[in-house]
Amino acid sequence: MMTVDQYLDSLRRINFKVYMFGERISNIVDHAMIRPSINAVAKSYELDDDPYTESLLTAYSSLTGNKINRFTHLHQGTDDLISKVKMQRMLGQKTAACFQRCVGMDALNAVDSITFELDRDLGLEYHRRFRRFLLHVQENDLVVEGAMTDPKGDRSLRPSQQADPDLYLRIVRKDEDGIIVSGAKAHQTGALSAHEILVMPTLTMGEEDADYAVCFAVPSGTEGITYIYGRQSCDTRRLEGGVIDVGNCRYGGHECLVVFEDVFIPWERVFMCGEYRYTGSLVERFAGYHRQSYGGCKVGVGDVLIGAAALAAEYNGAAGASHIKDKLIEMIHLNETLFACGIACSSQGKPTASGTYLIDMLLANVCKQNVTRFPYEIARLAEDIAGGLMVTLPSEKDYRHPEIGKYIEKYLKGAENVPTEHRMRILRLIENITLGTAAVGYRTESMHGAGSPQAQRIMIGRQADLDQKKNLARIIAGIVDEENKS
Amino acid sequence: MMTVDQYLDSLRRINFKVYMFGERISNIVDHAMIRPSINAVAKSYELDDDPYTESLLTAYSSLTGNKINRFTHLHQGTDDLISKVKMQRMLGQKTAACFQRCVGMDALNAVDSITFELDRDLGLEYHRRFRRFLLHVQENDLVVEGAMTDPKGDRSLRPSQQADPDLYLRIVRKDEDGIIVSGAKAHQTGALSAHEILVMPTLTMGEEDADYAVCFAVPSGTEGITYIYGRQSCDTRRLEGGVIDVGNCRYGGHECLVVFEDVFIPWERVFMCGEYRYTGSLVERFAGYHRQSYGGCKVGVGDVLIGAAALAAEYNGAAGASHIKDKLIEMIHLNETLFACGIACSSQGKPTASGTYLIDMLLANVCKQNVTRFPYEIARLAEDIAGGLMVTLPSEKDYRHPEIGKYIEKYLKGAENVPTEHRMRILRLIENITLGTAAVGYRTESMHGAGSPQAQRIMIGRQADLDQKKNLARIIAGIVDEENKS
Amino acid sequence: MMTVDQYLDSLRRINFKVYMFGERISNIVDHAMIRPSINAVAKSYELDDDPYTESLLTAYSSLTGNKINRFTHLHQGTDDLISKVKMQRMLGQKTAACFQRCVGMDALNAVDSITFELDRDLGLEYHRRFRRFLLHVQENDLVVEGAMTDPKGDRSLRPSQQADPDLYLRIVRKDEDGIIVSGAKAHQTGALSAHEILVMPTLTMGEEDADYAVCFAVPSGTEGITYIYGRQSCDTRRLEGGVIDVGNCRYGGHECLVVFEDVFIPWERVFMCGEYRYTGSLVERFAGYHRQSYGGCKVGVGDVLIGAAALAAEYNGAAGASHIKDKLIEMIHLNETLFACGIACSSQGKPTASGTYLIDMLLANVCKQNVTRFPYEIARLAEDIAGGLMVTLPSEKDYRHPEIGKYIEKYLKGAENVPTEHRMRILRLIENITLGTAAVGYRTESMHGAGSPQAQRIMIGRQADLDQKKNLARIIAGIVDEENKS
Amino acid sequence: MMTVDQYLDSLRRINFKVYMFGERISNIVDHAMIRPSINAVAKSYELDDDPYTESLLTAYSSLTGNKINRFTHLHQGTDDLISKVKMQRMLGQKTAACFQRCVGMDALNAVDSITFELDRDLGLEYHRRFRRFLLHVQENDLVVEGAMTDPKGDRSLRPSQQADPDLYLRIVRKDEDGIIVSGAKAHQTGALSAHEILVMPTLTMGEEDADYAVCFAVPSGTEGITYIYGRQSCDTRRLEGGVIDVGNCRYGGHECLVVFEDVFIPWERVFMCGEYRYTGSLVERFAGYHRQSYGGCKVGVGDVLIGAAALAAEYNGAAGASHIKDKLIEMIHLNETLFACGIACSSQGKPTASGTYLIDMLLANVCKQNVTRFPYEIARLAEDIAGGLMVTLPSEKDYRHPEIGKYIEKYLKGAENVPTEHRMRILRLIENITLGTAAVGYRTESMHGAGSPQAQRIMIGRQADLDQKKNLARIIAGIVDEENKS
Repeated sequence: MMTVDQYLDSLRRINFKVYMFGERISNIVDHAMIRPSINAVAKSYELDDDPYTESLLTAYSSLTGNKINRFTHLHQGTDDLISKVKMQRMLGQKTAACFQRCVGMDALNAVDSITFELDRDLGLEYHRRFRRFLLHVQENDLVVEGAMTDPKGDRSLRPSQQADPDLYLRIVRKDEDGIIVSGAKAHQTGALSAHEILVMPTLTMGEEDADYAVCFAVPSGTEGITYIYGRQSCDTRRLEGGVIDVGNCRYGGHECLVVFEDVFIPWERVFMCGEYRYTGSLVERFAGYHRQSYGGCKVGVGDVLIGAAALAAEYNGAAGASHIKDKLIEMIHLNETLFACGIACSSQGKPTASGTYLIDMLLANVCKQNVTRFPYEIARLAEDIAGGLMVTLPSEKDYRHPEIGKYIEKYLKGAENVPTEHRMRILRLIENITLGTAAVGYRTESMHGAGSPQAQRIMIGRQADLDQKKNLARIIAGIVDEENKS
Repeated sequence: MMTVDQYLDSLRRINFKVYMFGERISNIVDHAMIRPSINAVAKSYELDDDPYTESLLTAYSSLTGNKINRFTHLHQGTDDLISKVKMQRMLGQKTAACFQRCVGMDALNAVDSITFELDRDLGLEYHRRFRRFLLHVQENDLVVEGAMTDPKGDRSLRPSQQADPDLYLRIVRKDEDGIIVSGAKAHQTGALSAHEILVMPTLTMGEEDADYAVCFAVPSGTEGITYIYGRQSCDTRRLEGGVIDVGNCRYGGHECLVVFEDVFIPWERVFMCGEYRYTGSLVERFAGYHRQSYGGCKVGVGDVLIGAAALAAEYNGAAGASHIKDKLIEMIHLNETLFACGIACSSQGKPTASGTYLIDMLLANVCKQNVTRFPYEIARLAEDIAGGLMVTLPSEKDYRHPEIGKYIEKYLKGAENVPTEHRMRILRLIENITLGTAAVGYRTESMHGAGSPQAQRIMIGRQADLDQKKNLARIIAGIVDEENKS
Repeated sequence: MMTVDQYLDSLRRINFKVYMFGERISNIVDHAMIRPSINAVAKSYELDDDPYTESLLTAYSSLTGNKINRFTHLHQGTDDLISKVKMQRMLGQKTAACFQRCVGMDALNAVDSITFELDRDLGLEYHRRFRRFLLHVQENDLVVEGAMTDPKGDRSLRPSQQADPDLYLRIVRKDEDGIIVSGAKAHQTGALSAHEILVMPTLTMGEEDADYAVCFAVPSGTEGITYIYGRQSCDTRRLEGGVIDVGNCRYGGHECLVVFEDVFIPWERVFMCGEYRYTGSLVERFAGYHRQSYGGCKVGVGDVLIGAAALAAEYNGAAGASHIKDKLIEMIHLNETLFACGIACSSQGKPTASGTYLIDMLLANVCKQNVTRFPYEIARLAEDIAGGLMVTLPSEKDYRHPEIGKYIEKYLKGAENVPTEHRMRILRLIENITLGTAAVGYRTESMHGAGSPQAQRIMIGRQADLDQKKNLARIIAGIVDEENKS
Repeated sequence: MMTVDQYLDSLRRINFKVYMFGERISNIVDHAMIRPSINAVAKSYELDDDPYTESLLTAYSSLTGNKINRFTHLHQGTDDLISKVKMQRMLGQKTAACFQRCVGMDALNAVDSITFELDRDLGLEYHRRFRRFLLHVQENDLVVEGAMTDPKGDRSLRPSQQADPDLYLRIVRKDEDGIIVSGAKAHQTGALSAHEILVMPTLTMGEEDADYAVCFAVPSGTEGITYIYGRQSCDTRRLEGGVIDVGNCRYGGHECLVVFEDVFIPWERVFMCGEYRYTGSLVERFAGYHRQSYGGCKVGVGDVLIGAAALAAEYNGAAGASHIKDKLIEMIHLNETLFACGIACSSQGKPTASGTYLIDMLLANVCKQNVTRFPYEIARLAEDIAGGLMVTLPSEKDYRHPEIGKYIEKYLKGAENVPTEHRMRILRLIENITLGTAAVGYRTESMHGAGSPQAQRIMIGRQADLDQKKNLARIIAGIVDEENKS
């Protein structure tokens, strides 16, 4: 397994073609805008002395028996699924940000079982290729970006109906050596922290969309791939040079629009190529794993936000008020409900044909549906407890100003034993998670990541056996006999 | 294990002293008001051919290795805890009512670990006595009523401060042979379906309340015990002789006020007698188990209600409307969130010192807190889908009336292929669960059973490690160093 | 104006053909099941000495200048609309039940403006006829039942598509003297408390449904009309002879299925006959007025429920707990939000062409939409505060029993200074409103009365000018110029 | 009345001492950070040709009979109160931001009635002085900043108990000419857009806090006053020079920490000086007016957000989806509920002793309590509809980049007929209101402005007559007689 330093070095060796604010960026690892995001991923490489941390961050490879990073592991049982969720909560607690490496883990697990079934049904060799790629990932402890979401253009049209055929990533042509693809993947979380990109189709494809039924892996620095950095709320505070106003001065996340222009993929790295009937299951499984993930990572960020709100109350001298205590309990209750959903869908997991475990799909969708709601309410309660000062605080530069700083020191003091700067730091942290860069992860990603709310509702409707429920009601109402229960 | 008939016979042999509507009731088993409740418990004795049902309803005794009814089992692992929740969901689905036997199961498991710790710490013999009692229960497959809730009088006063010392059940005196107790237990669900009562203290007692720190088992027909039957919404529809208006014509639940007047308990059946320091843990563990339970049984009733609502929509010709589909999905989502909480607190269970497994206490409280909310919203959505006819339907007698019946047949017809009577039955079932006898279980018991909402909030506040969360926030905000994380 | 005694006498003179529980009922006024409902209407005839009460209950007729009961009045301004809502809140407070007379008031006001527009546009004489009928109502201070809701059969089919053409009330034939109608009206609140029925179509009719576009008035005892009494939760407690278990021993509501079998209506009382283009507006206006009404009456019942919950807490000795106070505040907040909506849609009313004032339609629909939600949450909070005893209380007969009664007296005592009977009465009142007969009005009628939730959502979508809002956004986003703002 | 140009000129003539990002700012009117905020206030000076706009923005002075700007008007009836709310909604629609002038209007109206009562009761001359000041404001059409909120230090301590006596603004000394004050006012919305500051005490003062019971007016450029600019989420996007990324390129709001260091106030401008018994009423009335205000301005911003969400759906090709339509309806419903509360508390207003009308205090608090909840849910729904692109969009600079821009143009295109730039602009607008600078006004100010949620709950508890409600319940339950209703 890699160390943090090895990880940073490995990124430095990748030739990313990145644009941000209209400029080409050369050194991403040391760029103030991008580094917090790399730091968050690096946390997954940081094995401290705590054996509990190690038990979560590592696993024994089902391919080699070697100890590997859990992010590269195929889940071998419900214990693995539960450990995954606990690892995510722990990293959420340590970074208060999106640590980006889950998408790849979820993609690896989904592609594993689907390629197995593809080969079993159709006599192909995708699974063998995939397992070889996975071995490379495990042995080199690589960060894999799972790339699913296409730009999608007009949502009321299918891929092949779009005005521009590239609005979904597609196979432009194939030859003996491999395939050539064009298109883009949007909202690519952690794109610049990754060594490899694992591309998957974004929705269930029909026969007419067979060219869009494509899955492959590609090194992130490959010729023809351009990264355009996405803006986040308050992003440029990172360029101001201070440590308070950013709220979280070490960790963050990022997203890119990743453009593929005639990118060549050798056959050895192609895991689906036109088998559109398998796209639906691949999307569902990846989404299912990723909906489980949110029952871990968002809970960890929630823990930090709850702690910050409790401190804000303390610093205000309001920690003893019964309504404050009650709001903190409500935040905890909502946060733990999310965790319960993450644990439950893991505990009820089942093996797929490849042996890799899949979460319970109904409960994973229920998990994510709650994630589209509760972080918003937790954030609202945090803003309630924090007080208005969170959004009217002067800048760190004013605070450091020789003349003006003393006014801030004097007038923004709360409880006597707490330095004004601590109060500012905690309020800025709450701002960061509820309105700033981390709000992108804690709010919007909670809403849309792993599929927008309506996507889960469709799955919930499909997974819940409504006919069985109707029959239960018919029996109790005496409409049918208990014996003939269908 | 007993058969259903053996169970009914065993109840017939108990000499309950019961009052209802101002009259002494002699034959409870065949009384139209009480029978549905006994039928619901009997369901726990009904092993059909389905191996899945059997795997849930039975277990192998940790005392004898014999196959026993799970309701008399000590949980030996997280699998047992999960099976318990699934059994409860299944019985909720089959009865759409409270099947009453859980309280005793939860009491047995709680008393087991507490008596073990009492004996370990104090060198007493409560645990040995308790295990002997448990053996009797397992071997005879008995229904045990767990009796915790005292009438409590003025809530702002402690037991020993009440105007009347009997407002909490207490030891009146002790002698060589045993103890004499007086007082009452309120809201005793399933009191008349049980062979034995297992009495526990209702809250954490202090030294001055030591006489109230008492735990014992007593056969339900014992001299000095009087049962006063509690009214439920729509209860007397059971006396009208029809099958439609009751909504659920086979199953139900009931509660009694159980009065103890100088009841003698031999020492062999006394499991706590004055050791007030252990009352808090006993209450917490029992409540914890029972808060887990609600993540099963209420979910099962919810399944029936969702099915009934789906049928009501179908019978109205409205099943295709997008808002109806969306409301059904919301009902499923909320119901499965409750289930997820029940599963999660089970999956994260840990052994106590006696070897008996305890659920995760934080998640069990979170589970119950959601149960105080979601069934109400599920019921509201069911009422929305059902339509107003649910509360304006004429009586079954009008429907059966030679002259008037035809008007009802004609005018209350919905979709052409559905008999009017089916529509009436389903609407009455929804009324039963949302407003009628079953609403007592589905709404009010969801609110107050296993402790009122505020009780869970106190536990959630206590179980969540707020100091750890504050420290996480301090580290991220840069107030303390990650290394010194306390 | 009539006195209460005159009102009771006038009802006694009507020859209702009523069935209940399979029997023909002769004396409705003195029937224990029906009388509470008549008492509630009678409250609208009861002018006590309070000038504020009088100012709400009476108005000066726009037809004659005479002082009349407000329930027979055409609203002449926004002050009238506001007084209407306040009158409804006051009567809700005094009866804790549905006082039934609003439907007629809302129907009279809706039919007034529609018939005016019909005559104006088409040169007919409906409005003159209607005003003559209204004069009769005002001068004799009559109770008018507004009858809109048809049974509707299969909701996915139009009236003329139903398997049975009578599933919507229709004109069977016309002749020189009048029309003959058949069909039924369902959920007819207060049908047996009314002197007259004012029948309206239930939805927007198309040309093929012209026979269903009919509006007329008919005395309630007319030949061919049959009333079938609807069951309510806990209805038969009224037949038990006590005063506690009913919860509210004086007031109640009721609904009937009203069947019309070849009923003759003379032309003088026909106000619409085939002019289907006006059905949509008639339904919208009646529904609009009635959605406003719920911002008054339900708030009044809510006041009683809040008061009862506060007393229950006091009787429990729990009134000082901060969570109890907070729940009461939440109940008040929700209840006053409903009132605010009732007042707002009244304050923003505008005159129709006939001079009769109409509420603001968007805000009236918003009002009712909140009514489909908040009473449920208020009820949930009341159940939370009340405690489980509400559904496990023994019967009044047990309480009055010479031997058993003393146990109840002793053990159900709460705070020392409060008689046990008072506690029982308050808990039964809360049960009555949340689960019993009054729950039909407070919950289900809040949901479905004046149109089910989806009906309001359709109207909200239609009334809100979304195009204007889009243009506001375009201007702010700089997509169009502020000057060219459409 | 002033024109927009005159207003800008008048601001240019004020010598503000302002700091921002550690630097002294000289020309505030032309500063890119501050100008949007001044533009928003300027909107209140912009009388276009629309007579409806004029009817809202102007009124006839109760002092002079002259036509004046409504922001300087004393409300003379409920019509004025209603017009105020409608004016605020309109300006919210036109600016999608906080237009800052309400605080002063609300302060003027509150100080008017309190000073009247002070003089009436104590024979002083505060009201005469205040009216003279008001005349100056009306005649010169000035913007007045209402300054109430002190920094407050440790919330568990009273003003005089704080470690630093200046943590609440106070009278340092008095002499013949006037008073000298020190302290600060926090969260001063629109401080740099105002000509005058009207300072009020922040809470109910006791005798020991008499030095803190002070109210006065002071020109905003007065010697001794320092303004420290507060940071907002995404504030520095205004310095980047583009028009897209800011979301709202013309309008905004701002807050300052305003420090008073030994500022001299002549007696003529002192309106309270130690009369602590009147502080509670002054705070309550000002807060009441300002809680009403939020039922207007936030609704206007909500209109823009709803419009933007509808456009985003359209641009995505998703406008026809039933769940999208339903979410838009829910947003409208919540927004109009807020408006209903604003209108209702206005419609039920009553005159104070000075003749100036006060809103209904209970309903105004209910209004604001809803404002602490619904904008958050509206924002959540907007984020749901907008999709994840809102937070992953590349920067405007990338979009304008000759090489990279074409990728954005191509891949971020939605519905074919909509320019990509329009889509970017609308998404940035939604980001602005939900996460960016305007979120400070739409979210945090909705939470804490005019008092934090708990402040309203205390007022709701105090204003609702719980004893009357208890009595209603006692009567219905038959505990007391209707006649003796106390």
